[in-house]
Amino acid sequence: MENGDCCPKQRTMVQAKTWILTKHFEGLPKNSNFELKLEQLPEPKDGEVLLEAIFLTVDPYMRPLSRVRMNEGDVMIGTQVAKVIQSNNPTFPVGSHVVGRCGWRTHTVSNGTDLIPIMHDWPQDIPMSLALGTVGMPGLTALYGIEEVLGLKAGETLLVNAAAGAVGSVVGQIAKLKGCKVVGCAGSDAKVAFLKDLGFDEAFNYKSVTSLDQALKDASPDGYDCYFENVGGPFSSVALPQMKNFGRIAVCGGISLYNDTTPQTGPYPHLTMIFKQLKMEGFMQSRWEHKNPESLRRLMAWVKEGKVTYREHITEGFENMPAAFMGLLVGENIGKAIVKV
Amino acid sequence: MENGDCCPKQRTMVQAKTWILTKHFEGLPKNSNFELKLEQLPEPKDGEVLLEAIFLTVDPYMRPLSRVRMNEGDVMIGTQVAKVIQSNNPTFPVGSHVVGRCGWRTHTVSNGTDLIPIMHDWPQDIPMSLALGTVGMPGLTALYGIEEVLGLKAGETLLVNAAAGAVGSVVGQIAKLKGCKVVGCAGSDAKVAFLKDLGFDEAFNYKSVTSLDQALKDASPDGYDCYFENVGGPFSSVALPQMKNFGRIAVCGGISLYNDTTPQTGPYPHLTMIFKQLKMEGFMQSRWEHKNPESLRRLMAWVKEGKVTYREHITEGFENMPAAFMGLLVGENIGKAIVKV
Repeated sequence: MENGDCCPKQRTMVQAKTWILTKHFEGLPKNSNFELKLEQLPEPKDGEVLLEAIFLTVDPYMRPLSRVRMNEGDVMIGTQVAKVIQSNNPTFPVGSHVVGRCGWRTHTVSNGTDLIPIMHDWPQDIPMSLALGTVGMPGLTALYGIEEVLGLKAGETLLVNAAAGAVGSVVGQIAKLKGCKVVGCAGSDAKVAFLKDLGFDEAFNYKSVTSLDQALKDASPDGYDCYFENVGGPFSSVALPQMKNFGRIAVCGGISLYNDTTPQTGPYPHLTMIFKQLKMEGFMQSRWEHKNPESLRRLMAWVKEGKVTYREHITEGFENMPAAFMGLLVGENIGKAIVKV
Repeated sequence: MENGDCCPKQRTMVQAKTWILTKHFEGLPKNSNFELKLEQLPEPKDGEVLLEAIFLTVDPYMRPLSRVRMNEGDVMIGTQVAKVIQSNNPTFPVGSHVVGRCGWRTHTVSNGTDLIPIMHDWPQDIPMSLALGTVGMPGLTALYGIEEVLGLKAGETLLVNAAAGAVGSVVGQIAKLKGCKVVGCAGSDAKVAFLKDLGFDEAFNYKSVTSLDQALKDASPDGYDCYFENVGGPFSSVALPQMKNFGRIAVCGGISLYNDTTPQTGPYPHLTMIFKQLKMEGFMQSRWEHKNPESLRRLMAWVKEGKVTYREHITEGFENMPAAFMGLLVGENIGKAIVKV
């Protein structure tokens, strides 16, 4: 109380809520891996802005990447759509929106690095959360995987797993736009119904089929030209022999492996790869970052024209970020998992 | 005796010795998988030639391919250098030499399909057996793996295993010609000495090192741009994480896997492939067959200039083909395994 009047600056300081990784994940993430921590933010300096998160994303990549990029005690990595609420940087005026790599936090002081302004002509009727999904990183991942890695051509047959997820659902739709036959696998009947709604030619629940091998054969008796891999593990061992000669595989994710405490093992793929002359390539969308502005416009155009539709799985409340993330890793979401602050 | 004079044609007929696959291999091939069988050959008809084998090749691919391409009772698949000893086909005059896909047999009647004449200007001082090795399929495999699959560039570091074999020894030498650093692994100290003689920058005996992981790190602390894979299995699981970002892997063989009765398993490669954005491609040299004439000339030129040297592991006697093949699969050979009839 004795400082009541003498510290006006202190009073206007903003308190950010943040989620800390207290301990590296072992197996499936648990509540005890996370801690909600309050952080006093300094006043933005010259060139800096103060951001307020509106939507945050949880993505499967955060699980393996936490091990590579984070130390215990760090704020969880991640991207958000945020509003500029205070600005000393003319590039980001107050009231404008950005996509920022801020981590799991409600408020951030940023110097503008790692911030990308939301398209100035973002349509009013399309939620800005799509900048974290179909018209953001997952959409770009789908697009680059198809165009840059697979070189998918009209008339080819594409297999995609985790097909009801943020990436897979866009993969299947773009492949349909390119004139391909699309086979999608997902882990629930509701997801399979979603895939059928999206226009997938074939879709099945890999958890309930008697034989994954037979289901893949039934869905495309001639085999697969391309395979967009989001799952890895035993699924991949069954799918690989069903590729056609000279088949291409884009390795985008391996969600079935992310929570292993000891790495799962499977048969070595060498013989299949040789006799079928398969090409398999791991990738991250950041490789083609220079193409993002044009690619995001294409994705947005498809969305506006209704050629690519979207579905979101929205969790309300910043305090539920760990729950949203843990749910994602066990496949609770259909479409893009988003946290609304 | 009563037919003595009446069947002159029968008398001039040639008897071929052949090796039959009596039973599909289970595990390492054994003598009991093979049977030497005599076959009466008919007179060559119009357009046909009679061939006499001079050199036959045994190659690791025969082990897995037997399962895919052969039935029990078939003559073992394979290629030979043969001399035309009777001809009704002007393309193949008597006394000329061919490379023929005749299988394991001393004599063959052929209509010319699957025969390729030996280069008309084959140098006198170079044994024709090289048409089964450095200036034949294994040399082409090395060349296409490097140029078409890996796109190896000067200054890059290449890892090759089974490096003292018919393919690996050429791979390392071509990579040196291209200005690369070459690290080779082989399974005996004598093989390692051979690799050093060939000019490999680093070579080690993977069987005697304390840690394969550490040996690979020591040989190239910065990692590997390219990896020419002849071995597969646990070796590959150790090597993969040592690739540089955007590393390329040409999957040519998997000799450590060919004799599995139940497939060996290893950790799934997906996470490494994603984070390092690796590209892995299985291939067979036949894909670039249209380039063979020019490619064989290049290989021969390197041999004549002494830029690519060769070593052969020659087994005498057609009756020893199974022994030569079984020896190959346990690594008895340094350089190309050849059987001289």
